[in-house]
Amino acid sequence: MEFDNSLPIYSQIVELFKRRIAAGEYKPGDKVAAVRELAVELGVNPNTMQKALAMLEQDGLLRTERTSGRYVTNDAQQIAALKLSLLELEATRFAKAVSALGCKKSDALEALGRILS
Amino acid sequence: MEFDNSLPIYSQIVELFKRRIAAGEYKPGDKVAAVRELAVELGVNPNTMQKALAMLEQDGLLRTERTSGRYVTNDAQQIAALKLSLLELEATRFAKAVSALGCKKSDALEALGRILS
Repeated sequence: MEFDNSLPIYSQIVELFKRRIAAGEYKPGDKVAAVRELAVELGVNPNTMQKALAMLEQDGLLRTERTSGRYVTNDAQQIAALKLSLLELEATRFAKAVSALGCKKSDALEALGRILS
Repeated sequence: MEFDNSLPIYSQIVELFKRRIAAGEYKPGDKVAAVRELAVELGVNPNTMQKALAMLEQDGLLRTERTSGRYVTNDAQQIAALKLSLLELEATRFAKAVSALGCKKSDALEALGRILS
């Protein structure tokens, strides 16, 4: 994975996992690979990987079963809320870009409507 | 300026100048600084800077007066078309992000409407 120097790596991993869960690449109830395995896959330190997973647990997107490992949440409402929050993040980025271009809101909605249709 | 390794530097400079012209940071008829000066400002090779400026001229966004230097176009229609094309680029990026999240078009338009209002 390529990381951006302007943000801590663990938070970029949190974002990546959120996107994978939202997109359904990681499905509700899927077992998550072991920390070391994920750390190798992403080319990061296992401590960094552990920190990212702990944050995802804190957000309720992953949960750990003491005996069998770590899983993606089965809570559909939680996943719907995640998708909505990522969508709002993207919409905010787009809105900022529109405003930096000095374009009108109506032009932005119109352009998006054309592209999505 | 920070450059992205995945694209040629001159094309990133072209994009930067387009954004500055669209946003009105460079106003119609403004004189453009000398190649060497711009190259120092952006930390690039003068040949790269020259190539970017030549492309902007080709696009009709800059023009060179043989005796007095290089200027931003005064053509309001050209600038309006530039703003629209950058807006569509941003809208396309947003639409791709929406689709990667597996969100519906109606949700995307609704979220954007909320944020822009």
